[in-house]
Amino acid sequence: MIDSAAPDTGTNDKMDYQRILEDIARAAQAEIGKGKVADYIPALARVSPQKLGIAIETLRGESFLWGDAEEPFSIQSISKVFTLAMAFALEGEKLWQRVGLEPSGNPFNSLVQLEYEKGIPRNPFINAGSIVVADVLLGHYKDPKTGILEFVHKLSGSSDIQFDKEVMRSEWETGHRNAALAYFMKSLGNIHHPVEDVLNVYFHQCALPMSCRQLAKAFLVFANHGILPDTGERILTLSQAKRLNAIMLTCGFYDEAGEFAFRVGLPGKSGVGGGIVAIIPNELAIAAWSPELNEHGNSQAGILALELFTTLTGMSIF
Amino acid sequence: MIDSAAPDTGTNDKMDYQRILEDIARAAQAEIGKGKVADYIPALARVSPQKLGIAIETLRGESFLWGDAEEPFSIQSISKVFTLAMAFALEGEKLWQRVGLEPSGNPFNSLVQLEYEKGIPRNPFINAGSIVVADVLLGHYKDPKTGILEFVHKLSGSSDIQFDKEVMRSEWETGHRNAALAYFMKSLGNIHHPVEDVLNVYFHQCALPMSCRQLAKAFLVFANHGILPDTGERILTLSQAKRLNAIMLTCGFYDEAGEFAFRVGLPGKSGVGGGIVAIIPNELAIAAWSPELNEHGNSQAGILALELFTTLTGMSIF
Amino acid sequence: MIDSAAPDTGTNDKMDYQRILEDIARAAQAEIGKGKVADYIPALARVSPQKLGIAIETLRGESFLWGDAEEPFSIQSISKVFTLAMAFALEGEKLWQRVGLEPSGNPFNSLVQLEYEKGIPRNPFINAGSIVVADVLLGHYKDPKTGILEFVHKLSGSSDIQFDKEVMRSEWETGHRNAALAYFMKSLGNIHHPVEDVLNVYFHQCALPMSCRQLAKAFLVFANHGILPDTGERILTLSQAKRLNAIMLTCGFYDEAGEFAFRVGLPGKSGVGGGIVAIIPNELAIAAWSPELNEHGNSQAGILALELFTTLTGMSIF
Amino acid sequence: MIDSAAPDTGTNDKMDYQRILEDIARAAQAEIGKGKVADYIPALARVSPQKLGIAIETLRGESFLWGDAEEPFSIQSISKVFTLAMAFALEGEKLWQRVGLEPSGNPFNSLVQLEYEKGIPRNPFINAGSIVVADVLLGHYKDPKTGILEFVHKLSGSSDIQFDKEVMRSEWETGHRNAALAYFMKSLGNIHHPVEDVLNVYFHQCALPMSCRQLAKAFLVFANHGILPDTGERILTLSQAKRLNAIMLTCGFYDEAGEFAFRVGLPGKSGVGGGIVAIIPNELAIAAWSPELNEHGNSQAGILALELFTTLTGMSIF
Repeated sequence: MIDSAAPDTGTNDKMDYQRILEDIARAAQAEIGKGKVADYIPALARVSPQKLGIAIETLRGESFLWGDAEEPFSIQSISKVFTLAMAFALEGEKLWQRVGLEPSGNPFNSLVQLEYEKGIPRNPFINAGSIVVADVLLGHYKDPKTGILEFVHKLSGSSDIQFDKEVMRSEWETGHRNAALAYFMKSLGNIHHPVEDVLNVYFHQCALPMSCRQLAKAFLVFANHGILPDTGERILTLSQAKRLNAIMLTCGFYDEAGEFAFRVGLPGKSGVGGGIVAIIPNELAIAAWSPELNEHGNSQAGILALELFTTLTGMSIF
Repeated sequence: MIDSAAPDTGTNDKMDYQRILEDIARAAQAEIGKGKVADYIPALARVSPQKLGIAIETLRGESFLWGDAEEPFSIQSISKVFTLAMAFALEGEKLWQRVGLEPSGNPFNSLVQLEYEKGIPRNPFINAGSIVVADVLLGHYKDPKTGILEFVHKLSGSSDIQFDKEVMRSEWETGHRNAALAYFMKSLGNIHHPVEDVLNVYFHQCALPMSCRQLAKAFLVFANHGILPDTGERILTLSQAKRLNAIMLTCGFYDEAGEFAFRVGLPGKSGVGGGIVAIIPNELAIAAWSPELNEHGNSQAGILALELFTTLTGMSIF
Repeated sequence: MIDSAAPDTGTNDKMDYQRILEDIARAAQAEIGKGKVADYIPALARVSPQKLGIAIETLRGESFLWGDAEEPFSIQSISKVFTLAMAFALEGEKLWQRVGLEPSGNPFNSLVQLEYEKGIPRNPFINAGSIVVADVLLGHYKDPKTGILEFVHKLSGSSDIQFDKEVMRSEWETGHRNAALAYFMKSLGNIHHPVEDVLNVYFHQCALPMSCRQLAKAFLVFANHGILPDTGERILTLSQAKRLNAIMLTCGFYDEAGEFAFRVGLPGKSGVGGGIVAIIPNELAIAAWSPELNEHGNSQAGILALELFTTLTGMSIF
Repeated sequence: MIDSAAPDTGTNDKMDYQRILEDIARAAQAEIGKGKVADYIPALARVSPQKLGIAIETLRGESFLWGDAEEPFSIQSISKVFTLAMAFALEGEKLWQRVGLEPSGNPFNSLVQLEYEKGIPRNPFINAGSIVVADVLLGHYKDPKTGILEFVHKLSGSSDIQFDKEVMRSEWETGHRNAALAYFMKSLGNIHHPVEDVLNVYFHQCALPMSCRQLAKAFLVFANHGILPDTGERILTLSQAKRLNAIMLTCGFYDEAGEFAFRVGLPGKSGVGGGIVAIIPNELAIAAWSPELNEHGNSQAGILALELFTTLTGMSIF
């Protein structure tokens, strides 16, 4: 959508994304040093805080890249969008009997709300919700890990994306809280497969390395109402795509979802690897990567980059 | 915004709102009997559950009305948008030191989260948040009640809107929980004026009677980036208007905000009087009124009407 | 009860309470400076932290006093025992439909648990519980304040105890949280009289000044199975007296009740004025006063004094 | 302790326990049919609800038995007293850095409070607390399971008590919530050994079968200030024994601890197998078994039996 009140642009066709990208990147670089790289697993702690990449992919097929836009990083929670899209396409509205649609208003891995809601996670982007989604996939795939890889290959057009075994093993070793969430939901009847199998899927999906470019490319399908722009294949129905975007807007940024909607106003998703990706319906997807996180677990520079992008282009869904 | 994937419409100019209105109204009428009229005060309990009104006001100046669209009803929580707009315009970003921006994930009048957050309400649309907004207005106006009336007169173009004294007195008599919220925040330092004065403002604002037509008219300013369409007067900055819309989308429907974003995908606000109003940026505002509420306190038929509107017109921000 | 495993005493009759008192007082004095005087109202903040009084009253009519044992101080929450005894005697077991018997496991003025429990306070010694007790008294007395004074006069044998008007007014002015609790319970149907009347009783009872000697004397009735030792008048049934003691043991020390049972092992009650009183069934009542509080709101030196008393005498109910 | 206000007894020596036992048993039998046998594992669900046993063991060496007093049943949570005694003797006061002493005010397996308290369970008798105790034992024993058996053999004087393998396996299979608790505390640093090893100890301890007679015998040490009456061996220091009793009184009956202290007034512990055991310091231990549970998970008839016992004997610590 193009907001006619956009301050400094004429029409969409003529928007100079490359120049905007450079303006954004300069401002984002000034944020480096203000956040904190995730250090709960060695593979994340090792990443240089100087890394900064931004990629824009448009539905017209253009690519605009900056900095480390083609270097893969651990997408972590951004993977929750992919598994949700898979499960939503397979289950349809039935999925919402096992996971809610409401913003959580609590830290992403809180047990309190889960207990209050009797084992139904508030939404599919808190850890508990994504663990239920992994359990759902186990009902459809003999090996959901292969299914996830194939899905991501298809969306991103990059068939060389593989699970990072070191990250995956580290997630297992440190994932006691996720194990607690899974066992708790199992005790309440909302996990149907063995907890170990479910966590195996979940810890794998978190260990996907992708670049900004690959992420932006993969998210174009959500900007395109569920249709893969390259092949025309429909991945989600029109209604499902619209709904997935609504969930990204209201729940995509942990406990900062409202703040993000307020400052940026785009559907998107972030991960503790420092990645962040958002879409403008009918137009483009933009991904940024900067490993330092703010207090809410979102990329410090990444959030600023996206905020600036909406300011400079006047693009916002509001 | 016009979503190019819209199923059954060509261009905006030609959209037949009157016909769409009739289709919506038929479907909404079928919902009557499925909800429950709010009965916590007599003035609300007395309203006929058969009432159904819908109004569309466009930025081009068109009006489309259906049923009881010109009959005033108690707007209740919808008034929170007006007082928030007033306080936001007066205080700017400073306002967010006293009230948050995050969806609440809890019933609209929960004390738990308020305690957890040390007296800072999650957002300005839960009761606690709107009570803080009333307290803010007391710092700017000798008599905020007059200020609120003048603001609503200006936005709606109807200078005959007055507080309903019976409703206001009933709110006082039954508003023990709101008193609890106010005293609790006072004890935590987030209410600066006497609790009685603050509640007096709050209970008055809830007692505003407006019609669908007046509401839709008054909300056009939010669809128009903060500028009154009739006079060109700027009420909110561009950025403030965008942000107010983001808050309406993420927090406007009590504990059903995520569900509403998912099903309807528009910024809006509801009230227990059965009113509901939403906007499409750059285009229009739509208000519906049907007194029966669903389990979340939102108008049963009103929500359906808005969902159908986005389906039939293909208009959605996603 | 006399525990035969008592380390350094022969029989009860010969126990040298005066010497024990002096040992205790020496140790208690060493605690002064480690706590913090309550300062939420001026009348409490003004009290010298050097004050230290201890009084023992036995069922045999003996008095043992130390230091400031005859100087009145604000008994604050200790008054909750008196009003509970009055309400329990009047209502019997019916009382427990409106207030629970379980330790709270949360700070004494938490709203969370109250919400969770739908307006039924966990026990009569948290503020919410005592406010309900005040409401109960309003159903039996035209003016419960006079009733409370008469009851305290009778138990203590001191007819000159009067409400401290300055303290009472300060409680009103700072008691926003208590007002929140009362309005909240009113909204849930567990306050039957006007909130203002209920708080008036509650804020008065908290403003009773009594000395250690008067408190110890007044608590003898609870060590004597509900019978006033001086007159033989029965105030509580045998069963009620036993039960009141059980409540004091499990709930008498805010969030430190378990710790107190663990370290001291006696039924008792403390107040933020620095008073603390406990009983040994069939034997005696002991009261201590030292204004500095520990982090749980109990008298720092007072708790130590009572712990030492049970250690030195070998008296404990366990 | 002998309460001089006891209604129908002269001196302790002459108390006719056998007759009292029969009175109690008659009343307890009338409760059968009012509760519900635990059915979360088959071995418990299979037990006849008609079972009723009561045993009194005195420090003078007398035994008074009734009904199924010598039939072993699953002691379940009563085992928490044994492991706590072991850990307390080994660790001393240091133990309380890892587990609290306060009544929980929440269901026995709540995660909410555990989250609020940052992984430190409120007390050693909620499941989380006993799991921490099992973890503590793993730091002292190569095989805590053998240590537990030896400890129970020594206290009960019955060397034939063995773990029930079927019950133990069922606990593993259904113990998802306990696994959740353990993983959650592991994530917060309060479990030091592998979760699987800790749960193995915990699920074994819950699977101990003992009779009322064996339980009463084993609890005499707590009525005897930490000294085994048969051999004079000191198991706990005087102070530790007193403190263990305080914990049993304030925390021994799940969410009904206050109610139990109120109605019965004795330190004790219950289990979902329908067992319940309590002590009177310096005097005796009494155990009852009736499989049907009340809504709080305590034996319906067992609680009544103990209440009656204190009423008929006039024995109570209050």
